[in-house]
Amino acid sequence: PSRASISVSAPARPAVSRLPRGALRLPRAASPLRGKASSAVRASAGPAGMPSVAHREVARAVAGEAEARLGDRLLPSAVPADVAEFRNGDGTALGSLDVRRGAPGSSIDFMLQSSLHCKVPNGAIDITSLFINLNASTDAPHFVMEFIQGSPTSMVVLLDLLPRKDLALHPEYIEKYYGNTEADKQRKIIEELPQARPYLSPSLFVRSAFSPTAVFFTIDCGQGGESVLEEIVHGHLASVVKGLLQIWLGTCAGDTSEVDEGEREIMVKRDRTVRSKSIEVDLTANLPRMFGPDVSGRVIAEIRKAFGVEEA
Amino acid sequence: PSRASISVSAPARPAVSRLPRGALRLPRAASPLRGKASSAVRASAGPAGMPSVAHREVARAVAGEAEARLGDRLLPSAVPADVAEFRNGDGTALGSLDVRRGAPGSSIDFMLQSSLHCKVPNGAIDITSLFINLNASTDAPHFVMEFIQGSPTSMVVLLDLLPRKDLALHPEYIEKYYGNTEADKQRKIIEELPQARPYLSPSLFVRSAFSPTAVFFTIDCGQGGESVLEEIVHGHLASVVKGLLQIWLGTCAGDTSEVDEGEREIMVKRDRTVRSKSIEVDLTANLPRMFGPDVSGRVIAEIRKAFGVEEA
Repeated sequence: PSRASISVSAPARPAVSRLPRGALRLPRAASPLRGKASSAVRASAGPAGMPSVAHREVARAVAGEAEARLGDRLLPSAVPADVAEFRNGDGTALGSLDVRRGAPGSSIDFMLQSSLHCKVPNGAIDITSLFINLNASTDAPHFVMEFIQGSPTSMVVLLDLLPRKDLALHPEYIEKYYGNTEADKQRKIIEELPQARPYLSPSLFVRSAFSPTAVFFTIDCGQGGESVLEEIVHGHLASVVKGLLQIWLGTCAGDTSEVDEGEREIMVKRDRTVRSKSIEVDLTANLPRMFGPDVSGRVIAEIRKAFGVEEA
Repeated sequence: PSRASISVSAPARPAVSRLPRGALRLPRAASPLRGKASSAVRASAGPAGMPSVAHREVARAVAGEAEARLGDRLLPSAVPADVAEFRNGDGTALGSLDVRRGAPGSSIDFMLQSSLHCKVPNGAIDITSLFINLNASTDAPHFVMEFIQGSPTSMVVLLDLLPRKDLALHPEYIEKYYGNTEADKQRKIIEELPQARPYLSPSLFVRSAFSPTAVFFTIDCGQGGESVLEEIVHGHLASVVKGLLQIWLGTCAGDTSEVDEGEREIMVKRDRTVRSKSIEVDLTANLPRMFGPDVSGRVIAEIRKAFGVEEA
């Protein structure tokens, strides 16, 4: 039975997105605890009531590093308050979304962070995402990071420099962004963990869209493995995410090579296809079940706006 | 130390390629034994002295099925005798190659079969390949099958309907050839074997060129697992190869949809890139070490001719 009929009304919230950037930074010790609602929470930390999860701390640190390095190439946050934080009617599902557009003249299209927490019969699901997309001034890969944690001992990791060209047609693109950058060394760090096994998306499209060095793994630490997972997340995983972000910041975000006019047209169409498909696969399939149609409709509309794939 | 300096002179052999097709078919019991050289051997069976390996029997059966179904869409074999069968100077490496071009007006570009056997210090390596490529009258996937057996208990399996378009740009292509055909069900049959684990090519290009349902696995049956491997090869693997061949014969080899002029140009370039790269990764890296420069040069030249990527 679908939960889509649950009536949801999101509480009104202050527009965190319009606060000056510095005001949003809180030292970790000052993180709001459950029940102590505060608007001064960065989106990646999640709204009040969102429990602390190791992977979310790593995501927050990485997002902070990206923001610091990109500096004024990012505009201030620009999502309505009822999308910056949202929840379902009975409070069993919480979410946050933050979108910062790229500044005019920069190669950044947008940076999107989101956090979801959803209670389920036997526990909770926590999903944390960070996408930093470039615009059509460059054909360099986007940065993609997603953690999906379905239990305290296991999670799925998706990390990639998402290609924007047909790799089989462009071996020089593979060489530039995946060979020369040694991105595969990062993937291997996770591959070599005894708790890791390759993750294959059920979506054939998702499998097709990612790069040959994509870090796609299930990390399963087995019964009693809560602290092992936390150690891996704060150790190997944090290191790999930071390593890939450094590659992306150095080689992709700063890329200034010209894009051929004809190739740009194909690339823009390709980007749009990948974004539409990822919304279809990732969000429209899941968010309504978690948050009901009203909230999820609002959130998805905002993501569509960021992705530039608004529905007709 | 490179073996490239070994002097090789291939024995003169009758032009098997010019015999009528029926003459090449021998019942298995009549297979030539070592020393009893015979030209009446089909290329996939390998030349005299090539030991019997379960995967080679499966490959032969599949190639035979493809030839029977494609019928007069295939022209007779057309490789010189010293490429149809070849060996190195001291007879520790044996190989065979058969190429049949597609008949004019058909959508077949060529069918290529090859078998390699190479003694190494601790045993032997056996590699058997079957590629059936379509021409530019269709954009349907090619058929690719490769078995690489490095010991009596383990092997690598590469099986795919090789895509000819940028899948991230063409979700409808994924749907048509990989979704609707349920190709992934075949992949899952191997994935579910406890002896199978995903195989990741060291080549980033190879990883990028294959489809999301590619059957890329290492099958390792461990010490004493010779008969287990043989059972898997004659059982699950044979069934999966035949299943994929049926899909390919039904959906790809018979495809009659029009290819747009602009897309054809990109596809031809893409095909050529994939073929050049696969020769580079697969053959020019390995054949000279096995057969020395003269023999391997002749063989690679013949494969380039079939692939339409002759060197300038």
